[in-house]
Amino acid sequence: MNASIGLYERLAARLGERGWTANPADMAPHLTEWRGRYTGTTPFLAMPATTAEVQDVVRLCAEAGAAITPQGGNTGLVGGQIPDGEVLLSLKRMNRIRDVDALNDAMTVEAGVVLEKAHDAAKAAERMFPLSLGSQGSATIGGLISTNAGGVHVMRYGMMRDLVLGLEVVLPDGSLLPALKALRKDNTGYDLKQLFIGAEGTLGVVTAATLKLFARPTEHVAAVAGAMDVAAALRLLHLAKARTGALSAFELMNRTSVDVTVKHIDGVRDPFAMAPSYVVLMEFEAGGGADLEHLVEAVLADALEEGLIIDAQVARSEAQAKSYWRLRETIPAAHRLEGAQVNMDISVPVSALPEYFAQAQALSTALHEGARMVAFGHAGDGNIHTTIMQRPGADPASFPGEAIIEAVQRMASGLGGSISAEHGIGVSRRDELPAYKDPVALALMKTVKAALDPKRIMNPRAMLEA
Amino acid sequence: MNASIGLYERLAARLGERGWTANPADMAPHLTEWRGRYTGTTPFLAMPATTAEVQDVVRLCAEAGAAITPQGGNTGLVGGQIPDGEVLLSLKRMNRIRDVDALNDAMTVEAGVVLEKAHDAAKAAERMFPLSLGSQGSATIGGLISTNAGGVHVMRYGMMRDLVLGLEVVLPDGSLLPALKALRKDNTGYDLKQLFIGAEGTLGVVTAATLKLFARPTEHVAAVAGAMDVAAALRLLHLAKARTGALSAFELMNRTSVDVTVKHIDGVRDPFAMAPSYVVLMEFEAGGGADLEHLVEAVLADALEEGLIIDAQVARSEAQAKSYWRLRETIPAAHRLEGAQVNMDISVPVSALPEYFAQAQALSTALHEGARMVAFGHAGDGNIHTTIMQRPGADPASFPGEAIIEAVQRMASGLGGSISAEHGIGVSRRDELPAYKDPVALALMKTVKAALDPKRIMNPRAMLEA
Repeated sequence: MNASIGLYERLAARLGERGWTANPADMAPHLTEWRGRYTGTTPFLAMPATTAEVQDVVRLCAEAGAAITPQGGNTGLVGGQIPDGEVLLSLKRMNRIRDVDALNDAMTVEAGVVLEKAHDAAKAAERMFPLSLGSQGSATIGGLISTNAGGVHVMRYGMMRDLVLGLEVVLPDGSLLPALKALRKDNTGYDLKQLFIGAEGTLGVVTAATLKLFARPTEHVAAVAGAMDVAAALRLLHLAKARTGALSAFELMNRTSVDVTVKHIDGVRDPFAMAPSYVVLMEFEAGGGADLEHLVEAVLADALEEGLIIDAQVARSEAQAKSYWRLRETIPAAHRLEGAQVNMDISVPVSALPEYFAQAQALSTALHEGARMVAFGHAGDGNIHTTIMQRPGADPASFPGEAIIEAVQRMASGLGGSISAEHGIGVSRRDELPAYKDPVALALMKTVKAALDPKRIMNPRAMLEA
Repeated sequence: MNASIGLYERLAARLGERGWTANPADMAPHLTEWRGRYTGTTPFLAMPATTAEVQDVVRLCAEAGAAITPQGGNTGLVGGQIPDGEVLLSLKRMNRIRDVDALNDAMTVEAGVVLEKAHDAAKAAERMFPLSLGSQGSATIGGLISTNAGGVHVMRYGMMRDLVLGLEVVLPDGSLLPALKALRKDNTGYDLKQLFIGAEGTLGVVTAATLKLFARPTEHVAAVAGAMDVAAALRLLHLAKARTGALSAFELMNRTSVDVTVKHIDGVRDPFAMAPSYVVLMEFEAGGGADLEHLVEAVLADALEEGLIIDAQVARSEAQAKSYWRLRETIPAAHRLEGAQVNMDISVPVSALPEYFAQAQALSTALHEGARMVAFGHAGDGNIHTTIMQRPGADPASFPGEAIIEAVQRMASGLGGSISAEHGIGVSRRDELPAYKDPVALALMKTVKAALDPKRIMNPRAMLEA
């Protein structure tokens, strides 16, 4: 007997007309990943609007032994949000800002709130929620928590994990963990919320979160600098950190990143005529009173004098700052037009970045003569998005993509690095995880999964094999 | 048959002469809590010097079904480090600084390293490890991690949890979780290290950690201000945060805190002649270039003009800054001399502090006429150490301490607060935890404990009842 007979009727009755669909046209946008890499199926799309409805959906599915794939804004990069026959649980109707407590620098929002709306709510209270990334017009708080999102301000404000004070979570049996504390300090037992942050929906469903807010910086300064090697760029990083105490982003782009972007994206240009091997984009922010622009200028002047950089510019207008960020943010769109390629999301200790850059290029070249490396990203955190592209004119079919991924990831792992700095594991990297994860760690992950979700109904294809 | 027959011989053989003792005189300092509130017993004090030795101790104990109490610097405040017949596992001989990687702003140290030594190692590399608290000359990194220690710089740098990049942990079966990553970003599965931070040794033994380092601030400014109510002090908090971006400590002391300390501690004086109801001690820090002292002066001038404070002083010398901190840090020693009293470690949302102060005094007075409240601490984090003292001259035996604790903790809990902001649960608060913790959360804690430590050998009397 199929235990799910009758399940969809029960779910539909509980959720009401607006709370579900099985109409293919309505479900379609939820079933295809935005780049088109994953397309899934589901018998039933649940769209609960309250925590109690989420609890009942999970409880009914658990009773029927039916698996669930939770979904937020469907902006994930590793396929963890696309169902393959599971009940699809969209949190998008849970989109209320429950509370903004400016005096506590905290706000409580539901899982389906889009990041940009959370930014707006913080701003309306003269505060700031600092997490910032390209998909912020679509990505939801629940998804950002479940994937422990990063973005461009991690070096100052941390990952999503660092920005969560409390979580409300529906557990795999439908019970509710109502741990929406708005406290900076609470040492009353295990910090259970940590289990669900970055768990990709495999241990429960995040329905709401209390998030940290910050004072809005009154001054912003953006600057670019050109360096001839990664080690020099790192010396600039530490100089800027120590001398200003105000560095909030430190993004590194290698020459090929800049070149392909200038080539393909209208209106993007190289800020430097001297074509430095690396362009660094820095952002600084401070409260009022400090003369940040002069401070940044002084640091860059010293860096020039010490020979760390060959040129630098401080943005004189918002438009100029935006043009720097546009160069950085359009790199992914640009490199996709350069034929066969593989993409990786690597982190290593910051001190190992020079070695990483050199080895990644050398290993790729050894496997494919003329391989071109686009390497860019959050160097201040040791996180480099790395794309290896075919040489121009080569047969795309001859490009040894898998071998290059394997070689570069092995090397990064040997440097103490990670094969998924911010994108997660999901479905796309699940099968390679055992090759990189320590076996005791992997076994402990499975112990945790089995303890919290013994029926294995929560996003069962993501992260961990059965 | 007692399974531990032969266990001590096996442990002794593995650890060698320097690695263990059963001599009462040698064990004594490990068996009494520093305030004398807990005295314990142990048949065997293990003092391993390497991770492999810790693994074998845990494995041999697990095989024999013998329980273990791990111990660091024995500075804990809730009795979690004192054995009651368990094998005592001291980590103090594991005291190596394994690695300082200044370019990665990280260092790897063993569990037995004393916090002050960690400070020194960071300083030698021109970096800073920011965790700072009264017991830093004795407290060890392993204990600070296992209790998720706080201290005076939490508002800028976070709790110990926020300062850990990677952990090496011996699991309850003796296997090793070698997760000593030195990465800011690593989304390859559950963040397992979080399980062991603040777990009070109930899920495994932390043997080493990779910690975050920071650029050393080049400027420090300390200041005190006098406020007439808590709400005004909070407005000062947010003004100082927003206007300087440099606030690293915000400590609040009520009038009684100041008065008892001036009375009992030689050389401590009230910085203000006007006897404000609350004295705020602030610390600011910044990288070079900013003129921090003038910035702080401007903020305090505005706060005076807006009527938030009635007086303020900026320290003109290191000695003056130290005198402010001496007032703050000697409060606990002073209030102990005032007769019957109870001590609590409360946190509430920062916005709820005015309500908390008013209610705590009112509830205490209702239970004991003339009750005096010493309330002080990390107001920037919502964490107020609260002592309720008898009225002078009352019979100490008539002081309703337990009833006051119950009333104040209930009230704080109702404000969304915590009954143990930074000290933990240990043995002393284990039995009251179920009254304050959500039952689903408590059940989930037990699920985690049972999954990781099914034989219940790791610090079995701490935090959770069997």
